[in-house]
Amino acid sequence: MNLTIDIGNSRSKLCVFDGDEIVFSESYNTLKIEVLVSLTKQFPIENAIICAVASYNEELLQWLDGHTNRTIVLNAETPLPIKNEYATPETLGLDRIAAVVGAYKQKPGCPLLVIDAGSAITYDFLSADGVYKGGNIAPGAVMRFRALNAYTDKLPLVSLNEKRRNSLLGADTRSAILDGVIYGIIFEIEGYIASLKEKNHDLQIFFTGGDAFFFENYIKNSIFVVSNLNAIGLNQILTYNL
Amino acid sequence: MNLTIDIGNSRSKLCVFDGDEIVFSESYNTLKIEVLVSLTKQFPIENAIICAVASYNEELLQWLDGHTNRTIVLNAETPLPIKNEYATPETLGLDRIAAVVGAYKQKPGCPLLVIDAGSAITYDFLSADGVYKGGNIAPGAVMRFRALNAYTDKLPLVSLNEKRRNSLLGADTRSAILDGVIYGIIFEIEGYIASLKEKNHDLQIFFTGGDAFFFENYIKNSIFVVSNLNAIGLNQILTYNL
Repeated sequence: MNLTIDIGNSRSKLCVFDGDEIVFSESYNTLKIEVLVSLTKQFPIENAIICAVASYNEELLQWLDGHTNRTIVLNAETPLPIKNEYATPETLGLDRIAAVVGAYKQKPGCPLLVIDAGSAITYDFLSADGVYKGGNIAPGAVMRFRALNAYTDKLPLVSLNEKRRNSLLGADTRSAILDGVIYGIIFEIEGYIASLKEKNHDLQIFFTGGDAFFFENYIKNSIFVVSNLNAIGLNQILTYNL
Repeated sequence: MNLTIDIGNSRSKLCVFDGDEIVFSESYNTLKIEVLVSLTKQFPIENAIICAVASYNEELLQWLDGHTNRTIVLNAETPLPIKNEYATPETLGLDRIAAVVGAYKQKPGCPLLVIDAGSAITYDFLSADGVYKGGNIAPGAVMRFRALNAYTDKLPLVSLNEKRRNSLLGADTRSAILDGVIYGIIFEIEGYIASLKEKNHDLQIFFTGGDAFFFENYIKNSIFVVSNLNAIGLNQILTYNL
């Protein structure tokens, strides 16, 4: 079995794969060695892959090196099952590469747009022949709420979970911010899809990240919402390198 | 002549109106009484209006009270030449009201969308019969760049003035952020215009604020870019209350 470790800015996500099937999936605020000890008791983990966009305790890696056949730390030089045309692969978020590989695994041979809506929202495009063509980064919903509160004198901190009226425009300051952030993101997502569909009629759209389930209901286009897309990609990259 | 004073979070903008015509316009980091003294020597200023979204030196108001026929401080109770259906008028930004009144002055009898792209981006809608229907607030371009840098571990601080390739998607981290913020805002603006045009075919779009000149070239729809929209609205509100 394979273990995928995705270390993000706020949380770390671990998945255990039996072949292509996810048999365990859990997120942690702080990833401790005890979690790894417990997992390796529960599952016969042979190989592991770490994808880190934030710093992490190096002891985790040492422990995995001693307790798996092979542990890979994903970096810009790791061989990938897709081609990468990014000008500076060393600065391309590893989580973004993982998500694109995850989408490619599910829909090979199609142009792909991968939208990952978390702390940041990333938009990544893969051509039908499996070449990563580039992508964009925008602030996520929570980040937009925080910034409006922190960088102005008078605006309150609003959250995605507040009750919404069914209307495009806000009727007071809180709903103006709530609708402003929500519709901003919806229009942004629809804008990328429309732009890319102009030249790629068979574009397949994958949507992942913590806020994907919130926004999926607002998107008119047909999309695949896959919560474990990064993990699926990491498992693919790990398998590709064994 | 009328004097309009628009006190924002970072700068204060003064305009002198001879009827509907702007004969003087200047912005100041800190607004001092000396500026008012100098202006009243230069122009026969009879009335003034202050619109403040940030705190300011009360002595300015006392000085104006003693040196004009009438000085109005815009607040939620000030009578307006438009109707306001905002649920909580006391929390609606006074600068937003001023901009909407300014647009209404220029295109009365049309449904209006006023977009103000500054620290925040506001979207405000006025029906053809002059009723303010509500609006949204989203982070401005600089705020999005700051947030991506401040609220993540690894993303750099990017600025709107960096050189852009002519492409939808970034090819490295800086261009991914630059294109991500720029296209996010473009798609957002186009999204509001398209949504509001569905039910308001004769929608007129006014675009103001510090970033209006940057974004106007990217917007496909026909728009009016008016840099002094708030001042025009303030002059209208002042005249309405004399």
